[in-house]
Amino acid sequence: MRITLIAALVLSSGFAYADEGQWQPYQMPSIADKLTERGIEIPAKQLADLGQYPMNAVVSLGYCTASFVSPQGLVVTNHHCAYRGIQYNSKKEHNYLADGFLAKKMADEPSAGPNERLYITENVKNVTEQVTANLSDEPLTRYEQIQTNSKGLIKECEADDNYRCSVNSYHNGLEYYLIKQLIIRDVRLVYAPPESVGGYGGDIDNYEYPRHSGDFTFLRAYVGKDGKPAVYSEDNVPFTPKSYLKINADGVKAGDGVFAAGYPGSTSRYNLTSELKFASDWLYPTYAERYQLQIDTITQMGETDRDIAIKYAGTIASMSNRMKKLNGLLDGFKATDIVGIKQSREDDFLAWLKQDKTANPKLIAELETLLAEQQKQTQTNYYFENAQSSTLLSTAKKLYRLAQEKQKPDAERESGYQERDMKMFRAELKRIDTSFDVEVDKTLWLQDLNAYIGQPLKVQVFDNALEHANNHKAFVAKVDGMYALTELTDQATRLAWMDKSVAEFETSSDPFIRLAVDVHATNMELEKASKLLDGKLSKARPKYMEAVIAYYKANNWPVYPDANRTLRITYGMVDGYQSKDALYKQPFTRLEGIAAKHTGEEPYNAPAKLLAAIATHDYGKHTIQSVYNDPRSWMCKLVSCVEPKNDFNSVPVNFLSSVDTTGGNSGSPVFNGRGELVGLNFDSTYEAITKDWFFNPTITRAVHVDIRYILWMMDKVDHADNLIKELELVRNP
Amino acid sequence: MRITLIAALVLSSGFAYADEGQWQPYQMPSIADKLTERGIEIPAKQLADLGQYPMNAVVSLGYCTASFVSPQGLVVTNHHCAYRGIQYNSKKEHNYLADGFLAKKMADEPSAGPNERLYITENVKNVTEQVTANLSDEPLTRYEQIQTNSKGLIKECEADDNYRCSVNSYHNGLEYYLIKQLIIRDVRLVYAPPESVGGYGGDIDNYEYPRHSGDFTFLRAYVGKDGKPAVYSEDNVPFTPKSYLKINADGVKAGDGVFAAGYPGSTSRYNLTSELKFASDWLYPTYAERYQLQIDTITQMGETDRDIAIKYAGTIASMSNRMKKLNGLLDGFKATDIVGIKQSREDDFLAWLKQDKTANPKLIAELETLLAEQQKQTQTNYYFENAQSSTLLSTAKKLYRLAQEKQKPDAERESGYQERDMKMFRAELKRIDTSFDVEVDKTLWLQDLNAYIGQPLKVQVFDNALEHANNHKAFVAKVDGMYALTELTDQATRLAWMDKSVAEFETSSDPFIRLAVDVHATNMELEKASKLLDGKLSKARPKYMEAVIAYYKANNWPVYPDANRTLRITYGMVDGYQSKDALYKQPFTRLEGIAAKHTGEEPYNAPAKLLAAIATHDYGKHTIQSVYNDPRSWMCKLVSCVEPKNDFNSVPVNFLSSVDTTGGNSGSPVFNGRGELVGLNFDSTYEAITKDWFFNPTITRAVHVDIRYILWMMDKVDHADNLIKELELVRNP
Repeated sequence: MRITLIAALVLSSGFAYADEGQWQPYQMPSIADKLTERGIEIPAKQLADLGQYPMNAVVSLGYCTASFVSPQGLVVTNHHCAYRGIQYNSKKEHNYLADGFLAKKMADEPSAGPNERLYITENVKNVTEQVTANLSDEPLTRYEQIQTNSKGLIKECEADDNYRCSVNSYHNGLEYYLIKQLIIRDVRLVYAPPESVGGYGGDIDNYEYPRHSGDFTFLRAYVGKDGKPAVYSEDNVPFTPKSYLKINADGVKAGDGVFAAGYPGSTSRYNLTSELKFASDWLYPTYAERYQLQIDTITQMGETDRDIAIKYAGTIASMSNRMKKLNGLLDGFKATDIVGIKQSREDDFLAWLKQDKTANPKLIAELETLLAEQQKQTQTNYYFENAQSSTLLSTAKKLYRLAQEKQKPDAERESGYQERDMKMFRAELKRIDTSFDVEVDKTLWLQDLNAYIGQPLKVQVFDNALEHANNHKAFVAKVDGMYALTELTDQATRLAWMDKSVAEFETSSDPFIRLAVDVHATNMELEKASKLLDGKLSKARPKYMEAVIAYYKANNWPVYPDANRTLRITYGMVDGYQSKDALYKQPFTRLEGIAAKHTGEEPYNAPAKLLAAIATHDYGKHTIQSVYNDPRSWMCKLVSCVEPKNDFNSVPVNFLSSVDTTGGNSGSPVFNGRGELVGLNFDSTYEAITKDWFFNPTITRAVHVDIRYILWMMDKVDHADNLIKELELVRNP
Repeated sequence: MRITLIAALVLSSGFAYADEGQWQPYQMPSIADKLTERGIEIPAKQLADLGQYPMNAVVSLGYCTASFVSPQGLVVTNHHCAYRGIQYNSKKEHNYLADGFLAKKMADEPSAGPNERLYITENVKNVTEQVTANLSDEPLTRYEQIQTNSKGLIKECEADDNYRCSVNSYHNGLEYYLIKQLIIRDVRLVYAPPESVGGYGGDIDNYEYPRHSGDFTFLRAYVGKDGKPAVYSEDNVPFTPKSYLKINADGVKAGDGVFAAGYPGSTSRYNLTSELKFASDWLYPTYAERYQLQIDTITQMGETDRDIAIKYAGTIASMSNRMKKLNGLLDGFKATDIVGIKQSREDDFLAWLKQDKTANPKLIAELETLLAEQQKQTQTNYYFENAQSSTLLSTAKKLYRLAQEKQKPDAERESGYQERDMKMFRAELKRIDTSFDVEVDKTLWLQDLNAYIGQPLKVQVFDNALEHANNHKAFVAKVDGMYALTELTDQATRLAWMDKSVAEFETSSDPFIRLAVDVHATNMELEKASKLLDGKLSKARPKYMEAVIAYYKANNWPVYPDANRTLRITYGMVDGYQSKDALYKQPFTRLEGIAAKHTGEEPYNAPAKLLAAIATHDYGKHTIQSVYNDPRSWMCKLVSCVEPKNDFNSVPVNFLSSVDTTGGNSGSPVFNGRGELVGLNFDSTYEAITKDWFFNPTITRAVHVDIRYILWMMDKVDHADNLIKELELVRNP
């Protein structure tokens, strides 16, 4: 019974490609009709222009999205995106995570931390020609040429060190774009609700709906007095953005068209069915098994050692999040036969391709051969890489690699080891201390070593180095000895190794440095094999994508590239969804739902001030009248039934829309049809997790914080009058 | 935060009294307007007449409701109501519980068991005058007078032994009715789906929705060749009912008016707030604690002893059901401040009463004093009665009581000990063997004894008899000894005690008989105290109810009596409900939901033939086109949005309506507005469990099997063509 209810709904819905698409801004005019159909009035041409409102107000935090909302550089994003900055400022005497934070004037705004950045995408340029002209047919050379061409473009672009540049591959190497981003280096904390609001429902509600999270935080961009980016200084002044978002205090209602802009991380929508099969049958279950073991292990160790519990809290949170995502993927594949759906589409494509006399008939077979090779490589590398998972070993490996790379001119060095990367390199060496415990690290490594030993894909050099073969006890003693002897647990020692020579590594007696040196050649061989395969794929994949795009165009289907951490626009509709048979999830949650969920215990421990404000039923002037959608009220217009009273006002807390998002879209501004801010994207529903592979329009919904909840919190709970004044509030015409 | 979302919804809904009411049939003309408003076309006067269609087709199973659906005495009820009869016919070689059963011709219909009965209510007569005329003011005398008057009426009515009669109190003794029911003594099994269909979802789905239960079974009433009731005989012939229900194969749709008829057990809607408080604060939590301990104990003992697991399966099922109901009550009181709502209504009533110069100003105070006394008595009796919970002790007590009662003329004996009760008395003594194990019984009794010992409400005589005071080990040894020595575990011995004299009891050496004799006087004292209080309440309560009814009438609110196991009619609308903030439960589930829930493991282990039939998408001629209600389809009529395709047909499995039901309504026929059968009632939603105290129209929904699922199962899965032919199928005009 693999094709169950949901699959049946999809197959019969005729919805295919409805609101699907993480569009490059320049593509917007090509889907202008669809935007209009959704009620999006702002001209598509305007959306395509990164220099114009509203796209010039959308920024990146590196891992999340944010947007400018005042002429004085005020920025709004998710609470979970600003988490690091709030944590950085939380001390025993003022715990901003627990209690929230509000700066009543600019002078009270603290730095969010020396590593926080804002990136403003100023230019996106097609450089396919520069990256792919005259590429060699020899795969390894081809791979290196692409790297070198890209690095050259980046170096040129980063001549002004206020900019960060990157060359990104689109459509699996069919196109390349050079992206230029202004770097704001002084980011400050302005206003954050308590974690019990920003992360209400915690891990239990993560990826779930109905949801009641106040997942928002305000930051501010600062620059030097000359208006140019500068690191934190008391003398810095607020940054003046090219524009800032208008905020619509009326919000949206069910059925309204919306769009969102942001930096989605990665999707695999155009991948072959064989790749999906590999992921669903091997990769995800294998990952899930290891994650669950690690989560259980760390949790158990944390129960008897509070220090471990604190140090690994962040690790556990992020692993739990990945675990829930993996479970969502695996459950989603059970609920809907996505492999079957994709296979049937691929079959149609192949049939179409066969009729094309100009197409290479071996195109697919060649690609499938490379993919099979890649999967084999992935499996081998998986166990071998895990067998090197000790934090100290991977640190030693990176340091030794650095010594190796430093022997080359900067431009020829491996990405990650160039001069431009050194600041981050150093920061990461320092950061280890905050989330590392010898016993936990050793326990997890031994688990990975045992898993490696217990499977057939062996890599000889490593086996020799570890001498594990015949005596488990001696082997554990050896590992114990390595942790006892190493000096890499000391931060200063780690940093000092950044400046040492290859020879110094090769004569070191530190056991992790020694092991890193021992396995280096093998790792390089595997890396070379991987680059070789990448080189082959860099030829085969673009050809495949070319054919796929031709097929889509022949069918008049819109084409957008898979997500790749670059700026995209997605549109959709405020809408609920059919979660299960007879179970409909409505598009808006309300304040009263917060009180109903409140138990007084984490993760449902709403602050007293919030509960008190809810109890007053004072929804304020910034909120609008009832948006609550009781399906009966529609029904009663058509059949004789008791009309529910719909004049029960409240403030909407979260809402759902059909926009197409993925990780990296956190904090993305959600706009109404006129391009006014109505919410912040922060999550997806559990049923929607498989959208990274297949966009199912009937169940794919993104979860947003409603701007009215943010305004109500500012107005009625936290009295952030200073900030409300700074915003440009508009109402519906 | 006691007033949460749902309470807020209720208070603001203006729905009060919407579809509330378990009406006596004679009352129907008084609510004719409301029926018309709901689209119920059948004349109210016709519904009031028990001799006319459809009420003369509605029957009782004693604990459930059923209805005639063919001129040959075919009856339909719930699978769980016919469970005993299916179990009775299940053998190793043909397990009808597991595999289902279908008689292809009448000759193949086996007896459902010698104790199965159908009761047809032929007459309901107001006998208030006869029961309550010239009652004494002395409470105990008053109590006895009511008993004697009732027994006299019953004896007269049962002169024809084909009838069972009862005198029932309505409005807490304000009115009494004599009810006369024809007894059908030969009930046979005709068609039952497998338990994996009839009880799909088992305990997990019990009281839950969305639901996918095929909770139906067909039985047949047989009578002697003379057309008169007779016990099972091969020569018996099918009974010809006065009428039988037409079945509407088009079913109903959302918003349709419906009504249901049946025998609801017990509600407490008119009880005082102090009674609700006592129940929610003491009674239910205390019950829940004991049930949970017993469920855990029996389950644990059953894990190591398969015999125990089998013997106590029924006990565990019924305790789990009660436990879920208790949890539903307690959760419901947490979610909605029903005490607050009822208190506020009671305050209004008291204020109104004050203005009435003719009313007794002490009315409420007097009643509250009696209720406080009753609650004290309940608490004392609770621990003391539990301390006598051993099956063997309670059997010994009943037998000794019988010997005592037999010394009186039959008419004066306590109800339950009269000649008319002896058949049931004997059957119960026999039935013990099927669900009794010495170790379990002893363990549970010791738990109850310990609970009794551990609380202050002691009853001296019992303490003396058990000598538990100072030595727990000796006490346990004494209990062990009692189970070792008693002969009451033997069925023949138990039955033989039915004919023994008081003197024989008093000289018996059986330890349980001895204990029963020892505690008898105390039990009689407590019973007398309870009767005394009942006598007082039999004066105070009717006066209170008289005032309440006057108040309701002054407000033009309809008045119906609390449920009391007598025939009632309730009306409502096919309708979904708001389960939680943003979570809407739609009124119909579909076949595809069965497949989606199927895991292959109990309780979601749908039979292969059912899954195969679902997969064909052949919904048959007896089913109609899509009734699935996607709220978006309504929404899209009003706002611009993607219209979901609603032409995806299916067979509805279960549906919700707002009819007012409770335990005893299982198997109740659910009618469309023309009085045609469209479903069978079988459960309520979890949120609705508190309706026994307070009918909250926004969340109170009953769950019904859709007649189209029953017809589809007969047609496409089990090929019960013989039965389909027997039914009178009609369609919508």
